[in-house]
Amino acid sequence: MEQNNQNDKTKSISSAVVNRLPRYYRYLSDLLRNERFKISSKELSKIMNVTASQIRQDLNCFGGFGQQGYGYNIKQLHAEIGKILGVERGFTAVIVGAGNLGTTIARSGLFVKRGVHLKNMFDINPNVIGNQIAGFTVMDIKDAADYCRENKIYIAVLTLPKDETEPVANMLAEAGVKGFWNFSNMELKIDKAGVKVQNMHMGDSLMALCFDLNNN
Amino acid sequence: MEQNNQNDKTKSISSAVVNRLPRYYRYLSDLLRNERFKISSKELSKIMNVTASQIRQDLNCFGGFGQQGYGYNIKQLHAEIGKILGVERGFTAVIVGAGNLGTTIARSGLFVKRGVHLKNMFDINPNVIGNQIAGFTVMDIKDAADYCRENKIYIAVLTLPKDETEPVANMLAEAGVKGFWNFSNMELKIDKAGVKVQNMHMGDSLMALCFDLNNN
Repeated sequence: MEQNNQNDKTKSISSAVVNRLPRYYRYLSDLLRNERFKISSKELSKIMNVTASQIRQDLNCFGGFGQQGYGYNIKQLHAEIGKILGVERGFTAVIVGAGNLGTTIARSGLFVKRGVHLKNMFDINPNVIGNQIAGFTVMDIKDAADYCRENKIYIAVLTLPKDETEPVANMLAEAGVKGFWNFSNMELKIDKAGVKVQNMHMGDSLMALCFDLNNN
Repeated sequence: MEQNNQNDKTKSISSAVVNRLPRYYRYLSDLLRNERFKISSKELSKIMNVTASQIRQDLNCFGGFGQQGYGYNIKQLHAEIGKILGVERGFTAVIVGAGNLGTTIARSGLFVKRGVHLKNMFDINPNVIGNQIAGFTVMDIKDAADYCRENKIYIAVLTLPKDETEPVANMLAEAGVKGFWNFSNMELKIDKAGVKVQNMHMGDSLMALCFDLNNN
């Protein structure tokens, strides 16, 4: 029931607003950590580098927690956006590929801050299997499907060479993994109902910068 | 002159196409590495997960290197897109922040593949300064501005804590750095003519995945 209500609510929010939600969530989290409880659209506009009218328009979509002359209730807004983003679902995750990037991600605060529970790490390299990284003992990738099935893992972070990414993702999707955060150099696509993919191509962002510099 | 011609050419390409250029460049680079020299829009469509008509439409913007029944000349197309993206400019770069993420980026193939020359790394931590990472001896961040000025550094990759990012970026912009690839948890904005910023918020991509899973 909760799930259905959530769906109804988010259906009415445009995809442009949805794309900005992670950014709002990030800034509101920071403000809460600094023990701030209310903020005006003007101040939020300044720290986020977004126009105040854009902020008012966006945040009105969630029922308008702002009051004229008072500002937004940060805690309430943060909780509401977090709910839409699934933060309170407490999604479970594993990292597959315990090289430099996988290790960096495991050691980062990326998961905890967003309500995602990192549960384990896997690798194919015998020299890496058994190593301690970020409090995990790296497991053999051949045990990943069983582990994900038994532990109802929702998200797999894939930091694998390009050619290994798709077969591993398909294997994990069969084991019930629903979300793939793919860092490899290809567009991952899984043809299975309910499975979602986010491709994270860091190099494309570098190229966009180079384009801007080249056409300055 | 060359620069002006480039500007004229790219002005006519829509921003939607520009956003897809890094992706085309990535796939074409892969094909060249595998010693492929021509490809049909149909095959490119299949490996890139884009419709063939989209590909034909996009690539026609660069003068149409495809021939009916023959396909695209990969080398020519790769060179043309690389030129628009500034690959042949050979932009110089430094990494500021030699922690886990900075180290991972330095060790990756991200720069070389895109014609960017990584020149040095900087950090503030005395325990990190002097360390060897990816062939560089990490330098003291207080020497970064002088280094960038003397070596005409174009791009600074910032893997710094949020509060240190803006002051360091402003300092480097004063020293002539034109492009900032910012990994910190805030929207960096530099008010200086000709300076470009790309913010790379990995966590926002994770949140977008969580949103998709939550509203499935």
